[in-house]
Amino acid sequence: MLSLEKTMNYLENFSNEVFTIADAKRGDIGNTSTQYAVSVFDKAASGFNFDAITVAPYMGEDSVKPFLAFPGKWAIVLALTSNKGSDDFQLFADINETRLFERVLERTSKWGTSDNMMYVVGATKAEMLEDIRKIVPDHFLLVPGVGAQGGDLQTVAKYGLNDHCGLLINASRSILFASDGTDFAEKAALEAHSMQKDMETILLSKELI
Amino acid sequence: MLSLEKTMNYLENFSNEVFTIADAKRGDIGNTSTQYAVSVFDKAASGFNFDAITVAPYMGEDSVKPFLAFPGKWAIVLALTSNKGSDDFQLFADINETRLFERVLERTSKWGTSDNMMYVVGATKAEMLEDIRKIVPDHFLLVPGVGAQGGDLQTVAKYGLNDHCGLLINASRSILFASDGTDFAEKAALEAHSMQKDMETILLSKELI
Repeated sequence: MLSLEKTMNYLENFSNEVFTIADAKRGDIGNTSTQYAVSVFDKAASGFNFDAITVAPYMGEDSVKPFLAFPGKWAIVLALTSNKGSDDFQLFADINETRLFERVLERTSKWGTSDNMMYVVGATKAEMLEDIRKIVPDHFLLVPGVGAQGGDLQTVAKYGLNDHCGLLINASRSILFASDGTDFAEKAALEAHSMQKDMETILLSKELI
Repeated sequence: MLSLEKTMNYLENFSNEVFTIADAKRGDIGNTSTQYAVSVFDKAASGFNFDAITVAPYMGEDSVKPFLAFPGKWAIVLALTSNKGSDDFQLFADINETRLFERVLERTSKWGTSDNMMYVVGATKAEMLEDIRKIVPDHFLLVPGVGAQGGDLQTVAKYGLNDHCGLLINASRSILFASDGTDFAEKAALEAHSMQKDMETILLSKELI
């Protein structure tokens, strides 16, 4: 059995506590997007039972909508990513100074609801969260880039929180690579716990928990 | 063994004649794009030895370039796709009326060469091939949408051919679903052969073969 399958089977023991995301950045013509959705959402067909998948919006409506057809599942659409190349196309702007990532938010948010869609917004672009919250005040934002990529949790929280939290902060490499020694498990746990405490402090200060 | 692996192993007997494309529409941060490239190009690591992969450009330079690092292999970047939703973002235009797909052509063509990059341009947008050829006169264009999706081969050839052909025309469903009876193999072969003859006639008339 592949280790991904082992991990996902193990996590089913904690399905009420753990939200699983297939960070696959899929997006294709309708038929194919539907099959990608089946491959991560439909346990009977594929063996996988993820809660969410990340979706690349370049091909538009018929490439995104199939991921919204699975009750209880989420499509997390790439809006403004945390990598360097995000400037190349995501900041491309029209005559009204609407940038592509804003166009993506405006259009795609009409295809689903804040109960089946989220958006990827890199923590390295935290200052843009203010603009983003004007377009999608209610949606959850998945925020990678805190930790190894240098994003700052306080700034993300300042501009990104809404009245039901609305932020899903992700750290990967800072936890995965917390240590390359035999103390890996402890060091990774410490790093994860430290981030969780920081977030808890912020949420308590805003009376969100 | 998966049927895809069987098919690819069989096709290795014809590797001088058959060009294989993993139509996977990948694109992710650099580390991940590199691993996607390995998964289709590096036979020793993955079992697959495709000639090319389709790439979604939304995440920009560091998401595309890893696919260009494999000698003899091709990245086929989505520019203007043939599906209905292609209008949603690909036609988004800046103050100079440059559309996103043109921006993608302009930028990405600087990251590679006409010997390791191609572009997806749907046959259903054949009239735009004239504009596209102004930006990428030398690149091969992979043109889906002829056949089931209604694109016209003559129009595609008129606007898309360059002096070394420069067109890779793809028909999928019109061949795959040529018949659902026991005569499937014959009907699919006839359909494929018919398209090949049409293309040959065009190339002969232009003295390209």
